Amino acid sequence: MNADGAPGFEHWQDERLAQVERALSDWVRADAPAGLGQAMRYAVLDGGKRLRPLLVLAAAEAVRGNPQAALRAACAVELIHAYSLVHDDLPCMDNDVLRRGKPTAHVQFGQAQALLAGDALQALAFELLTPDGADVPPAMQAMLCRLLARAAGADGMAGGQAIDLQNVGRQLDEAVLRDMHQRKTGVLLRTSVLLGAACAGRPLPQASSQALRRYGAAVGLAFQVVDDILDVTAESAQLGKTAGKDAASGKPTYVSLLGLEGARAHADALLAQALAALDGATGLPGGIWRLDALARQMARRVC
Amino acid sequence: MNADGAPGFEHWQDERLAQVERALSDWVRADAPAGLGQAMRYAVLDGGKRLRPLLVLAAAEAVRGNPQAALRAACAVELIHAYSLVHDDLPCMDNDVLRRGKPTAHVQFGQAQALLAGDALQALAFELLTPDGADVPPAMQAMLCRLLARAAGADGMAGGQAIDLQNVGRQLDEAVLRDMHQRKTGVLLRTSVLLGAACAGRPLPQASSQALRRYGAAVGLAFQVVDDILDVTAESAQLGKTAGKDAASGKPTYVSLLGLEGARAHADALLAQALAALDGATGLPGGIWRLDALARQMARRVC
Repeated sequence: MNADGAPGFEHWQDERLAQVERALSDWVRADAPAGLGQAMRYAVLDGGKRLRPLLVLAAAEAVRGNPQAALRAACAVELIHAYSLVHDDLPCMDNDVLRRGKPTAHVQFGQAQALLAGDALQALAFELLTPDGADVPPAMQAMLCRLLARAAGADGMAGGQAIDLQNVGRQLDEAVLRDMHQRKTGVLLRTSVLLGAACAGRPLPQASSQALRRYGAAVGLAFQVVDDILDVTAESAQLGKTAGKDAASGKPTYVSLLGLEGARAHADALLAQALAALDGATGLPGGIWRLDALARQMARRVC
Repeated sequence: MNADGAPGFEHWQDERLAQVERALSDWVRADAPAGLGQAMRYAVLDGGKRLRPLLVLAAAEAVRGNPQAALRAACAVELIHAYSLVHDDLPCMDNDVLRRGKPTAHVQFGQAQALLAGDALQALAFELLTPDGADVPPAMQAMLCRLLARAAGADGMAGGQAIDLQNVGRQLDEAVLRDMHQRKTGVLLRTSVLLGAACAGRPLPQASSQALRRYGAAVGLAFQVVDDILDVTAESAQLGKTAGKDAASGKPTYVSLLGLEGARAHADALLAQALAALDGATGLPGGIWRLDALARQMARRVC
């Protein structure tokens, strides 16, 4: 444990990333019929920052939660994220050809197989959360499924994407833009923190619970503001996806709304909110240093 | 209760169908953002034979299972079925324009919204299975999610669709055709019976449990054989979907493999298997008459 998040955090992060990659590779199996397994693995493995899994694991370790449940929840939320990217990239949605530095799944496998791979990844997320055996208590399984289903569905991520579709080419005010992002990307990041906390298997003290909620909300929104900034300032090769895409397609962003400097100031303010929120969770037995370091890293990321 | 399934069954079925329609209408809400709720309701309501929900409820009543859990599972499996139809009808898959006597969802709402509606319906299925409160015990919630996720995913329905995609225009032998159908449609029908049985909240006697599995497997396959027969013999208006589509698109079917008479004989044999299997479940406290009548009705359906 360390207070400033520096070398101890890097080591923790490297270990956890390796663990998540191994688990994803074990659980997303190549042997699903008719090439479906290959398409699912292509969409999930060898790419991605694994930010959502890291948030799950950091929160789970803060509450000293069940480690098997935490690893399953970490991978489940990443599968939901991966499926949403596959579907979002399809020609009828964003029609994108580059993702994580590779051709998108439908370019590689055809639209029909990409569609099915996304569908199967969503189902697999819930399968991971409900293993046979005694590693994860049934009540915890049910709670994890409840949180993830709500986050993925019409009031969460899918709803955010519907708002996004509806508003291409329109000028939005900040309230609508925030609502869209809180659903489209924010809710899954926020829920990652809650999934980790649910691995405690018991209700947390109310102050800690509220603190984690506030942290998750601020981090979730900060992520999107930084994403909007990077869409303007970074190169495609660096991002691993098509840069400048949002601006070119007339999508409203924090940069189009607040300007580049305004968006940067907003990201800084959200980071400060996230860190301040953690002050309410200092009593958690496993410590908040991982969550603190993750928020800082997310705010200063360059890809 | 009655032994021959006649008037008592019709009354039971009418009541349960009304209950399922009300529940679906309550749970698939119109107020999801940006028209997504309307697209979801369009895909689910006012149509469909609700065969899967009836199987869930018939099995749940056979085991005197938790009625709230049974109604949620009945609706959840129907949402998975409805989402699979929406995605299956998309231009990159079967490119169909007629479903349940109405324009398909993407014709009505556009491809992007149809894609999202399907995605959100899958998430909603798992949300229905994991309510807050004490109506459905957490261990039962976890079990229902486990069964449904496995049925929907790469080893089940999505995998069956991948096999289907791969084999358009090819001649298959019966073993491959059966494997495809057991996954593509059979697994969800079979799982409907298991979901109902899981509402008992305790393991069933082994003989009853095996009997229900055998019944579900036979009914699941019989349904598909009858579907293949109707694709050839019925009119589009009667089916509510495009008739003759499978033959026209070069899809392998039981009729292309066995001929019309051969397929009819196979459906009869599967019905006999289903009814024989129920002999092993006569000890269930709520009785097997609903399951018996459902199998007979399914085998002689004309649409």
